[in-house]
Amino acid sequence: MEENRKEYTLGTLAELLGISLQGDPEVKVSGIATLAEAKAGELSFYHNPAYIYDLKTTSAAVVILSTAAADDCSANKLLTDNPYLAYAKASRLFETSSASPGEIHSSAVIDSSARIGKQVSIGPNAVVEANVRIGDHSIIGANTVIGKNSCVGENALLYPNVTLYHDVIVGTNAIIHAGVVIGSDGFGFARDDKVQVKIAQLGGVSIGNDVEIGAGSTIDRGALDDTVIENGVKIDNQVQIAHNVRVGENTVICGCSAVAGSSSIGKNCIIAGAVGIINHITIVDEVTVTAMSLVNKSITRKGCYSSGTGLSESSLWKKNIVHFRHLDKLNNRLKTIENAANIKNSKNNKN
Amino acid sequence: MEENRKEYTLGTLAELLGISLQGDPEVKVSGIATLAEAKAGELSFYHNPAYIYDLKTTSAAVVILSTAAADDCSANKLLTDNPYLAYAKASRLFETSSASPGEIHSSAVIDSSARIGKQVSIGPNAVVEANVRIGDHSIIGANTVIGKNSCVGENALLYPNVTLYHDVIVGTNAIIHAGVVIGSDGFGFARDDKVQVKIAQLGGVSIGNDVEIGAGSTIDRGALDDTVIENGVKIDNQVQIAHNVRVGENTVICGCSAVAGSSSIGKNCIIAGAVGIINHITIVDEVTVTAMSLVNKSITRKGCYSSGTGLSESSLWKKNIVHFRHLDKLNNRLKTIENAANIKNSKNNKN
Amino acid sequence: MEENRKEYTLGTLAELLGISLQGDPEVKVSGIATLAEAKAGELSFYHNPAYIYDLKTTSAAVVILSTAAADDCSANKLLTDNPYLAYAKASRLFETSSASPGEIHSSAVIDSSARIGKQVSIGPNAVVEANVRIGDHSIIGANTVIGKNSCVGENALLYPNVTLYHDVIVGTNAIIHAGVVIGSDGFGFARDDKVQVKIAQLGGVSIGNDVEIGAGSTIDRGALDDTVIENGVKIDNQVQIAHNVRVGENTVICGCSAVAGSSSIGKNCIIAGAVGIINHITIVDEVTVTAMSLVNKSITRKGCYSSGTGLSESSLWKKNIVHFRHLDKLNNRLKTIENAANIKNSKNNKN
Repeated sequence: MEENRKEYTLGTLAELLGISLQGDPEVKVSGIATLAEAKAGELSFYHNPAYIYDLKTTSAAVVILSTAAADDCSANKLLTDNPYLAYAKASRLFETSSASPGEIHSSAVIDSSARIGKQVSIGPNAVVEANVRIGDHSIIGANTVIGKNSCVGENALLYPNVTLYHDVIVGTNAIIHAGVVIGSDGFGFARDDKVQVKIAQLGGVSIGNDVEIGAGSTIDRGALDDTVIENGVKIDNQVQIAHNVRVGENTVICGCSAVAGSSSIGKNCIIAGAVGIINHITIVDEVTVTAMSLVNKSITRKGCYSSGTGLSESSLWKKNIVHFRHLDKLNNRLKTIENAANIKNSKNNKN
Repeated sequence: MEENRKEYTLGTLAELLGISLQGDPEVKVSGIATLAEAKAGELSFYHNPAYIYDLKTTSAAVVILSTAAADDCSANKLLTDNPYLAYAKASRLFETSSASPGEIHSSAVIDSSARIGKQVSIGPNAVVEANVRIGDHSIIGANTVIGKNSCVGENALLYPNVTLYHDVIVGTNAIIHAGVVIGSDGFGFARDDKVQVKIAQLGGVSIGNDVEIGAGSTIDRGALDDTVIENGVKIDNQVQIAHNVRVGENTVICGCSAVAGSSSIGKNCIIAGAVGIINHITIVDEVTVTAMSLVNKSITRKGCYSSGTGLSESSLWKKNIVHFRHLDKLNNRLKTIENAANIKNSKNNKN
Repeated sequence: MEENRKEYTLGTLAELLGISLQGDPEVKVSGIATLAEAKAGELSFYHNPAYIYDLKTTSAAVVILSTAAADDCSANKLLTDNPYLAYAKASRLFETSSASPGEIHSSAVIDSSARIGKQVSIGPNAVVEANVRIGDHSIIGANTVIGKNSCVGENALLYPNVTLYHDVIVGTNAIIHAGVVIGSDGFGFARDDKVQVKIAQLGGVSIGNDVEIGAGSTIDRGALDDTVIENGVKIDNQVQIAHNVRVGENTVICGCSAVAGSSSIGKNCIIAGAVGIINHITIVDEVTVTAMSLVNKSITRKGCYSSGTGLSESSLWKKNIVHFRHLDKLNNRLKTIENAANIKNSKNNKN
């Protein structure tokens, strides 16, 4: 990566990040690393007290941190109330571009009816079908396929081996990782005796601005109406979004979660990893669901929700699950005793 | 999509669907939509009483519905005992084709030994290896790869970026969505002390007729015998089928479910989303497994099965899972009291 | 497959496998099959007593088995203490190669700065970007994309439609199945009020030697340091490895499991299918986690761990989960009775 490394003076960094520098504005940094790994000439950050030792001993040229922690740092300092956010912004300054702007590889197959914006890059063997529109400054990776009538906004980044079916709309600043499929058929059938008769999926997919979609995720097109991903949604790897789902603004869905058909997730939710959400339910705004939970009913109040049993040693677990299968009986046994002992616990007996 | 919109008179529709029309046979429809969204000139359907208000107020030109509901509909009516099935059939009439029949793109790489049927379409940059056979009227998407000796039946539709390994058989009318991988190695190793020694996966994959496989799903080849997906099976997105699994006729497997090696699922089963099925077990015909359940033993009687705890607020959940880990002790405490109180409940005490 | 079938005399087989032959060294075998399916001229193996009938009645020309079982076999015998391991080794002898050594397809797009080893095969429409290095005897499948500066070791096998992002290192003897994505961005954001600000993922991915990665699996690049997969790790299909995860030597991760960010798995672990491992935890060496468990805390002692409830009929399950949600109350009710009955069970009451 060396050839493309970016370099900034601390003065420039402070300006770009909009935070104040305590130190030498002429010092240059050309990389970013953890406190423990940072070398001279590199930037680091401190926001988690677990790393206080690393802060005190870091070789970083400059550290992003809060004023409260400044005394524990002998390097140059970039001071801010939110070091993690400033680190996020700083990290973007050290990215190296993955494509040359405006280069359309000769092996790409682009239909003559497609309208390609200015400074668009299209990688080798990419396929752009009829009536596709691609906004200015977007990058389409190698071997990516964009189906007819689909539309990609400005400044979008589609990595290699992405598949957009027909009539898919992707907003500006989208980041779509390799292996993603958008617009595949929703899973809809009507039974005719034992045979499943396919319901044609005639809706589309509408993805807002500033959405990121992780590697291998799949988003199905709607049956009649569209599947909708609103602005600012962030979707991790191998997430499955079924037909006619709606995901509200700025919601985050972590890896391997699945949302079944026609369910709706509110704004500013956090769906942790490997969560399952059944079909035709609604989750309100600002809900958190913890890892590997099954959401099997609508969530009508904001808050944090979980399911599962927690982890045990398997030998103990085997003993316990036997009783899980008899919990109803166990409750009845308890009631019998309560009655025998004449214990009135009306509240509990409602169990 | 406008350019390809299809148009039918109600008379033709009634004929094509084999159901009776109550209304004007000359009226034309050119689209299908929900009751709420349908505009004049569009078809809709009613099968769920939750939408009775939409039925009464729809602008649809014609509604597919049962005779029982006919009085609540002022539009033209297509009458049938099974409106959902008729909707499924109608939806297919409004699909627009995604490929031109018989067009083989010049950039596709097709081995000279491959036998390609009549009216087969092959998209840009697709790769068809030695001795592959593709049946008449099939469509192979852009950038899809079909490994040597594999065979795709007639009227099959493989979307872009599909990978079929070598010696994979896919039946007629198959629909295989983008990102699907069929024929990858089963996950088989023999331990040599701590090192895992790979077992070559020498079997194939055999997929019947009328099978649909959702985006990003993976089906491994068998170790020695084939992995088998029988006729009419429908598999949703991101499903994993391990080596030597057998899935019986017309079974439906929803998104993100996983079936481990050598397990067998019967006919006409419904495996909901994110279900896990462990290896070397058997599930009989007509079994339903609810979302996110773990099938950790064979299922020998038809019926509906579940696992998991249901969802709670996390604060309550944390309190409860503590006791889950002590269920065996809790049961013993209850026994102690039952004995002390001289309560004989032989049935319960067997717990 | 017939054209490439491999044939060995039993004498040669015994020599190649390093085990002893009881039978005719001149007999030839040209395939491998289960005891039940093996025909004359084929090799089989016996290691599971469940198949004793098949052993006694097999038509196989030769069977790999232990001396203890030899009397039940009338075929030629290849004798070893570990028949399953010998079968694994034998299976490799019957594999047929999927690519011609040294053939680089004319449609592959290879940057002039890439350094390609000897006898490397590169399939149609594969893309190899700037400064990539590919070791001798490696095979790169059709439509696979290797991002700039990435490095693939010797004797590696990348199937079609694989995506390696930039700055990914893959060791020798790697087997990477179709649809795999390595080096996609880790899922990292800092919140700025409600907006998620992307943290650039500037680390790489480092994959050791003798690693296999199943179809559709995804491995994210690190935020600053690398994501690390050590030597001999075997990863099944549709596994998700988040940024900065470390997986220790010879660990096996089965299908559809997910490991969240910065977690570390020890050496020689077995992670069964559909397991979830939350972020920032540590699992020591030689841990087994059973199918579909959630690892929601670090595991500090070797052993076997589980979570979940086991499967029930749904009607019973619905009754039981009601009480799961009241386990804390149920425990309190039990305490009340214990106190009333004056039962001292200090150990249990600590529950």
